[in-house]
Amino acid sequence: MLILDKVNSPEDVKALAFEELEGLAQDIRDTILHKVSTVGGHVGPNLGVVEMTIALHRVFESPKDKIIWDVSHQTYPHKILTGRKFGFMEGHFHDISPYSSQDESVHDFFKVGHTSTSIANALGLAKARDLTDGEGNIIAIIGDGSLSGGLAYEALNNAGDYKGNLIIIVNDNDMSIAENHGGMYRNLQDLRESHGFAEDNIFRAFGLEYFYVKEGNDIAKLVEVFEKFKNINHPILIHIRTEKGHGYLPAVENKEAWHFKGAFDLETGKLASLQPAVRNYNDVIHEVMEKKIAEGSPIIAINGGIPGSFKLKDFAAKHPDRYYDAGIAEQFTITFGGAVAAGGARPIIFHNSTFLQRAYDQMVHDLAANNEPALIMLHGGVISDTAITHQGTLAMTWISNIPNLVYLAPTSEEELIAMMNWALSQNEHPVVIHLPEHGIEHRPSAFSSFSETHYQITKYGKDVALLGLGGLFSNAEKVSSQLDKLGITSTLVNPLHISKLDKSTLKSLAITHKVLATFEDGILDGGFGQKVAGFLGNYEIKVLNFGADKEFNEEVPVPELYERYHLLPELAVKDIIGALA
Amino acid sequence: MLILDKVNSPEDVKALAFEELEGLAQDIRDTILHKVSTVGGHVGPNLGVVEMTIALHRVFESPKDKIIWDVSHQTYPHKILTGRKFGFMEGHFHDISPYSSQDESVHDFFKVGHTSTSIANALGLAKARDLTDGEGNIIAIIGDGSLSGGLAYEALNNAGDYKGNLIIIVNDNDMSIAENHGGMYRNLQDLRESHGFAEDNIFRAFGLEYFYVKEGNDIAKLVEVFEKFKNINHPILIHIRTEKGHGYLPAVENKEAWHFKGAFDLETGKLASLQPAVRNYNDVIHEVMEKKIAEGSPIIAINGGIPGSFKLKDFAAKHPDRYYDAGIAEQFTITFGGAVAAGGARPIIFHNSTFLQRAYDQMVHDLAANNEPALIMLHGGVISDTAITHQGTLAMTWISNIPNLVYLAPTSEEELIAMMNWALSQNEHPVVIHLPEHGIEHRPSAFSSFSETHYQITKYGKDVALLGLGGLFSNAEKVSSQLDKLGITSTLVNPLHISKLDKSTLKSLAITHKVLATFEDGILDGGFGQKVAGFLGNYEIKVLNFGADKEFNEEVPVPELYERYHLLPELAVKDIIGALA
Repeated sequence: MLILDKVNSPEDVKALAFEELEGLAQDIRDTILHKVSTVGGHVGPNLGVVEMTIALHRVFESPKDKIIWDVSHQTYPHKILTGRKFGFMEGHFHDISPYSSQDESVHDFFKVGHTSTSIANALGLAKARDLTDGEGNIIAIIGDGSLSGGLAYEALNNAGDYKGNLIIIVNDNDMSIAENHGGMYRNLQDLRESHGFAEDNIFRAFGLEYFYVKEGNDIAKLVEVFEKFKNINHPILIHIRTEKGHGYLPAVENKEAWHFKGAFDLETGKLASLQPAVRNYNDVIHEVMEKKIAEGSPIIAINGGIPGSFKLKDFAAKHPDRYYDAGIAEQFTITFGGAVAAGGARPIIFHNSTFLQRAYDQMVHDLAANNEPALIMLHGGVISDTAITHQGTLAMTWISNIPNLVYLAPTSEEELIAMMNWALSQNEHPVVIHLPEHGIEHRPSAFSSFSETHYQITKYGKDVALLGLGGLFSNAEKVSSQLDKLGITSTLVNPLHISKLDKSTLKSLAITHKVLATFEDGILDGGFGQKVAGFLGNYEIKVLNFGADKEFNEEVPVPELYERYHLLPELAVKDIIGALA
Repeated sequence: MLILDKVNSPEDVKALAFEELEGLAQDIRDTILHKVSTVGGHVGPNLGVVEMTIALHRVFESPKDKIIWDVSHQTYPHKILTGRKFGFMEGHFHDISPYSSQDESVHDFFKVGHTSTSIANALGLAKARDLTDGEGNIIAIIGDGSLSGGLAYEALNNAGDYKGNLIIIVNDNDMSIAENHGGMYRNLQDLRESHGFAEDNIFRAFGLEYFYVKEGNDIAKLVEVFEKFKNINHPILIHIRTEKGHGYLPAVENKEAWHFKGAFDLETGKLASLQPAVRNYNDVIHEVMEKKIAEGSPIIAINGGIPGSFKLKDFAAKHPDRYYDAGIAEQFTITFGGAVAAGGARPIIFHNSTFLQRAYDQMVHDLAANNEPALIMLHGGVISDTAITHQGTLAMTWISNIPNLVYLAPTSEEELIAMMNWALSQNEHPVVIHLPEHGIEHRPSAFSSFSETHYQITKYGKDVALLGLGGLFSNAEKVSSQLDKLGITSTLVNPLHISKLDKSTLKSLAITHKVLATFEDGILDGGFGQKVAGFLGNYEIKVLNFGADKEFNEEVPVPELYERYHLLPELAVKDIIGALA
């Protein structure tokens, strides 16, 4: 019998004999490895905090004491100890979220998925406790990687002024997803090497009391430290050195590769299914960049701590002077990138849609109001089955409404190349290229300049006009084919532009067709189709918009979403026929 | 003859005898005071950096050496020394921007207006210099107040890793607009009191070399320091103590009041026109808050360094435990505020539209995805004559497209009270109230709950339906009156909700009217009217959207904008008649 079999709640952790806790750690580690080796998941971050999580639940009284995990991709041990063991058992792997969720357990308090929020969230709960005469410790756990995001500093600065109980744990494994970037990490290193006694101390500089723990995977030591600071009446920052991947050799030896892993063989650490290398849009982007470098263009690839998403590792190794990783600091990447453009170089800024949200104001001011000719490559702006906190469907709702920005939607490799070439040779506007992400498609590019908005018409009909934006152009093509079979002729339009309308083409389409339908890979509100509908409001033509509802979805399969949103061609055809009637 | 008469460029500053520089400082001070006492402007920040600006232009070679000012509300001395004296002379006060602008001078590099961008901008120019084999010093000047924003820390962290010339000047006058908030400010104080030798040093903790200068209003000392670090081959942070308002006693004695000032009497410092205290929506908000406190509701007023915008100073004095100023840290205010709501208290978060942009991601995740019942009071989301970097017209284009948020547009005091009461008693959704700001109006509130979207119809007609959102409802009323006179009857609708449609009312309006027109106080793209047009695309009714174009405007008078956007009732009537034809 496992020790874990006796544990279903934090109370059970407290009821174990102290000597059993090491065995519990081993059981938790085995449980996590069983799941992640079968279906993939975050490996290193969870293995690193097994002992810390046990010690927290041994000492503190969750949920009266509130434990808040930054990003929350390291909450597997916490979930296992708070009644969610079932989510790690065969047949139930997907019954729980990979992140924290208050819908799942009273021991979770927030749905998170982006970095650097935990201290702000903890301060908020602390303030609410004080306002409502509540009780309990508030504990934030933040990784060293998350300390590169501005929100973490705003919160440290506020914590330094706070007058009540607040425990901030810096879980320092000397790793972000990738290696850390920034001068502050030398201070963390100094603190680790001096066991907390470095000349300068960034946390004390924010006004916080500080305590260093080098034995971050030692349950006895951690229990002792947490007992010491439990019920403290002011903020304390406990800097704890942990080992990412602790207890599983492959994950310790290659920390970055083992941050998140697909299903793998537990013995060897080898991935279960080695996917053949299929050429994708990242390869196209890299080919354009290589060509630009060969031509002598001063390009520089900028990203915010996610080089892996864009295959930038090889590029960085080959062109170290043309590569800049700012850490998880999205705001900085945009202001910095805009200034790089202002200075006459050629920034290409790589972002996931969900993370670029952090830099909305910088997009508005530092890029758009200044009209800096920076290029942003946007990944993940599609209807997908992600967790609620990584949804990319909002991209068009905010980016397409910023003045001055040219926001482009290629449908093919050729268009992507043409757009990049144009963006990197013009000096008029910031450009965002919204990557289609449905696998590489081929269509010749009708244009080599995108400074004016011209839609491309690829097929002429007279009943219905179909505007398929970017990755959903092929969807419009399918609708067109199905309409053909029903004897309904359609004009097929590739808009190429997301944020500015080709008014003259829209006008002539409106005069010559009965119904116009738009297709976009995101939330309809604020997006492309509503702009078209607004412009054509004064015309007789009927306008149908196909895209996502304004909603959050927690890991809903894409086919289900396409059905819900009538993006399946047969459902769209039905609606169009209805509008023609 | 003034010494300033001899100075029209940085070269002229270098050509002066050293002994003349003090006189130049006095002339600049007089020039600034002449303008701000006549037409208002930023007083304290500009008077504090007169000596620093002279020393910079004495030592460095602008524009080869690039000086980047954070926020840039302290650039009056810089403008005076770089060919823009005319903007301080009678009849030309409005010929120059109050902020830096590359359109105005080769000595300016960015249009800015929000805090905390200067180090990121400087690093970008430095990187571009290195990529293009350029030359010159890059100098960022950031005030201590701007160090509370997360972007400043992201940039300090990146600067600590940078390998080339970069000079960061921290202009420390121990003041933000209001007093500073945060533990880091104790470190700045320690550094000032120890003349740079405090136990911890936040800047060194970010990996930066550090130098302290206590004589920040002493030209000779500043010239000496700048000469020392000119052409340095790595980043240096120079911490300079200056006096806000230096040289003008009223501004020194009351630094906060003199940060920005309307026209005043130079002798006495008294405001030229003491506006009679007119009751406004801030007063209404405070009355509701007082009532809530009296009822025992655990409300707390949160803001990000701009208490003056919402008359929060008196509230803070009266209810210190119900007041929280996070410093200029918008991201933090939202994550923190959401957590305060999660913890069972009642946050009311006060923001200017232009600054809330900084917290888009936190609005999406930490409020909306978590459905925290926080209340945001939004100010400045209107078509106005602001500078390009303070435009509030984007508010609806991004806030209205976030799922789960209830985004409300009161048209009157009664509706504002009803909305606040409802928002502070429900637990379902985050709520944003978009303040109308066209002076208090009175209309009874038709609803006491806003969990469902119900439009209010205040007048019935049969030709045209007019939807006037929030502050523009009275505009729709005027249009209705003018149509009446032409024998065209109109239905007048007060939508109350910005982000969610009352579909059943819209459907019946669509069936019974020929034209529907929407009016909104912001950019049309992504906003209210386009949602209506999208929904009604499949109906016969014609839809016209009235609101702002998607564009940035630099201090354009409101009447001109209303004419351009056909928001003048007579122009809207004309368009409506055209659509009826």
